[in-house]
Amino acid sequence: MYEIGVSAQFEAAHVLAGDFGPATRLHGHTYRLDVIVRGERLDSDGVLYDIGKLRTAVDALAGSLNYRNLNEVPDLAGMNTTAEAVAQYCWGKLAPQLRGQALTSLLVRVWESPQVYAALDDLLSKPPL
Amino acid sequence: MYEIGVSAQFEAAHVLAGDFGPATRLHGHTYRLDVIVRGERLDSDGVLYDIGKLRTAVDALAGSLNYRNLNEVPDLAGMNTTAEAVAQYCWGKLAPQLRGQALTSLLVRVWESPQVYAALDDLLSKPPL
Amino acid sequence: MYEIGVSAQFEAAHVLAGDFGPATRLHGHTYRLDVIVRGERLDSDGVLYDIGKLRTAVDALAGSLNYRNLNEVPDLAGMNTTAEAVAQYCWGKLAPQLRGQALTSLLVRVWESPQVYAALDDLLSKPPL
Amino acid sequence: MYEIGVSAQFEAAHVLAGDFGPATRLHGHTYRLDVIVRGERLDSDGVLYDIGKLRTAVDALAGSLNYRNLNEVPDLAGMNTTAEAVAQYCWGKLAPQLRGQALTSLLVRVWESPQVYAALDDLLSKPPL
Amino acid sequence: MYEIGVSAQFEAAHVLAGDFGPATRLHGHTYRLDVIVRGERLDSDGVLYDIGKLRTAVDALAGSLNYRNLNEVPDLAGMNTTAEAVAQYCWGKLAPQLRGQALTSLLVRVWESPQVYAALDDLLSKPPL
Amino acid sequence: MYEIGVSAQFEAAHVLAGDFGPATRLHGHTYRLDVIVRGERLDSDGVLYDIGKLRTAVDALAGSLNYRNLNEVPDLAGMNTTAEAVAQYCWGKLAPQLRGQALTSLLVRVWESPQVYAALDDLLSKPPL
Repeated sequence: MYEIGVSAQFEAAHVLAGDFGPATRLHGHTYRLDVIVRGERLDSDGVLYDIGKLRTAVDALAGSLNYRNLNEVPDLAGMNTTAEAVAQYCWGKLAPQLRGQALTSLLVRVWESPQVYAALDDLLSKPPL
Repeated sequence: MYEIGVSAQFEAAHVLAGDFGPATRLHGHTYRLDVIVRGERLDSDGVLYDIGKLRTAVDALAGSLNYRNLNEVPDLAGMNTTAEAVAQYCWGKLAPQLRGQALTSLLVRVWESPQVYAALDDLLSKPPL
Repeated sequence: MYEIGVSAQFEAAHVLAGDFGPATRLHGHTYRLDVIVRGERLDSDGVLYDIGKLRTAVDALAGSLNYRNLNEVPDLAGMNTTAEAVAQYCWGKLAPQLRGQALTSLLVRVWESPQVYAALDDLLSKPPL
Repeated sequence: MYEIGVSAQFEAAHVLAGDFGPATRLHGHTYRLDVIVRGERLDSDGVLYDIGKLRTAVDALAGSLNYRNLNEVPDLAGMNTTAEAVAQYCWGKLAPQLRGQALTSLLVRVWESPQVYAALDDLLSKPPL
Repeated sequence: MYEIGVSAQFEAAHVLAGDFGPATRLHGHTYRLDVIVRGERLDSDGVLYDIGKLRTAVDALAGSLNYRNLNEVPDLAGMNTTAEAVAQYCWGKLAPQLRGQALTSLLVRVWESPQVYAALDDLLSKPPL
Repeated sequence: MYEIGVSAQFEAAHVLAGDFGPATRLHGHTYRLDVIVRGERLDSDGVLYDIGKLRTAVDALAGSLNYRNLNEVPDLAGMNTTAEAVAQYCWGKLAPQLRGQALTSLLVRVWESPQVYAALDDLLSKPPL
């Protein structure tokens, strides 16, 4: 199996609801977003998928969250903006443009700091969330 | 599948027995301990497992090894303190508190330096070591 | 000249006033705080200053800013919470406990991300801010 | 399952053919090469495989690519030197010496920068490429 | 004294002339460019200089070197593209737009890898190179 | 002023004497050694000093401390192996080969972890320690 990965960064505020101690105060992170796709075969150019194209998509997504309060991002409003939820949101945003190609699965990892992340790893054949 | 990961650090000495060249001299490392748990579903708060709670457990474990000679840590005494063995030890210490929840597997990665690690990845349903 | 440095981290939200584009929207960072002290001589234990003691002071300061909105931290309220201002604030908090010892200067560096920082470097003999 | 990983670095030039925009101009990278092997059991010394031995093999491979134009490395000449192709090349070079031991799979990850990688992950029992 | 720093990255090929062993073969690096400016006073917005403005300038400079053979960059052609020379080149490109403000000095650091850099640190009042 | 820097790594055990809490237990670190030299002018090859030559010297020094108990290194025996003392030791080992050239000062930084370092920065014209 081949895989390629690209990373981007965004700097955002958020606040959690629930029994999460200090995370229920407004705070922020320099998020790192890792996006990884997998597949079985390289094409005739010797690539699984064009890394430059993946990078453009991931940079655009990170850019849309940069210098934002995540709790005010339309698709996240009303949700708890846990790292898991942000990973799920990014997975859902990226998957449509990656289906119908030679890619089998998509992993999105959202780091809140160099010590903490959440990720969602799923088959691209899974019906849209 | 969702996963969350947290990392901690400990600074320890150790010495290996066996045919391992310079590693059979007393030396030390700034270890990095990565702990990752996986599961299929988020709960109603939008988390797989409380990252803060996982972090507390991992920090406590790393703290118990910090500024120690690993060969003198009771549960490691008499073992070869390879990175694999330290990963196995940490897996065994963390698994009990992670069972009986919505988590399916636990991965423990022990870095001896930014270039070298060993890891143990296993189902939480596996009987205790 | 000798110097010692310790680093800590805090995760905070803030918003800037002024002509700073996207930084005038509420957002956040995983800040890294580097604190460095300098002096000419080691003491009889072979240290410029006890790194453990410095670390305790820096961790306490970082902890007081962790999971906060910097614009609501009492001593920063009413100021523009630029990285320069946060560095100045941290310098002012740390300097008193470092004066009257063999240390000549104090440098505080505040990273908003791995790509951006501001710092204040000054003599400890300088009158308090 | 256990795994061990080692990393090395090489600094090389290359150029791509195809519809890859700026990557079709001669350029270069500080590559990071991550090599990971997996297996089910530790031997009587408490290791999956001797990390020192794996490191020697990986350092030799990285050394053979260091300060080179990848398009002139004999086994890569005539290929498109994508990160995927370099990962495949490294996999093929390392696998023979890792077969016939207690190792089940080999993962080779080739980072072109801290933000971009390609990887090949396969069973060691797979017939040689 | 205050300082602010921003970093950018570029991925380039180059070759050295002279008695520099393997560096006289065509090779490449993922360069990291650190740019730091210093001054004595913050303005009424609480900044030494607008970090966003500095970042725009540094990103543009890094972009002009990205995916290039440094030996073919017009202003570097005919020079030995040592890390020192690249630092000097970047210093000369950035200094004009930083003069005539409250900044006293400019430091440019050019990393060829995470282990190796060259830098030029000079007063902005120095006559242009 | 120009400067060049190179880094190396060594993994060692040590123990401190004195009132240093947990650091008085045998422990270890993955040390990072940063060595920086400065001077005013580039030579006709466009370098301050051959980075490859500096790297060879620094790698040899790091190699001599790798997989050692610092308290048993002959020149450190009988000293308190604080990070400051290790920096002083490395400064003294490197300075002789760097004198009598166009270099004015030498800075040695010894990191015990990514969060803690000590350094010695001095003129190369200073009489040997």
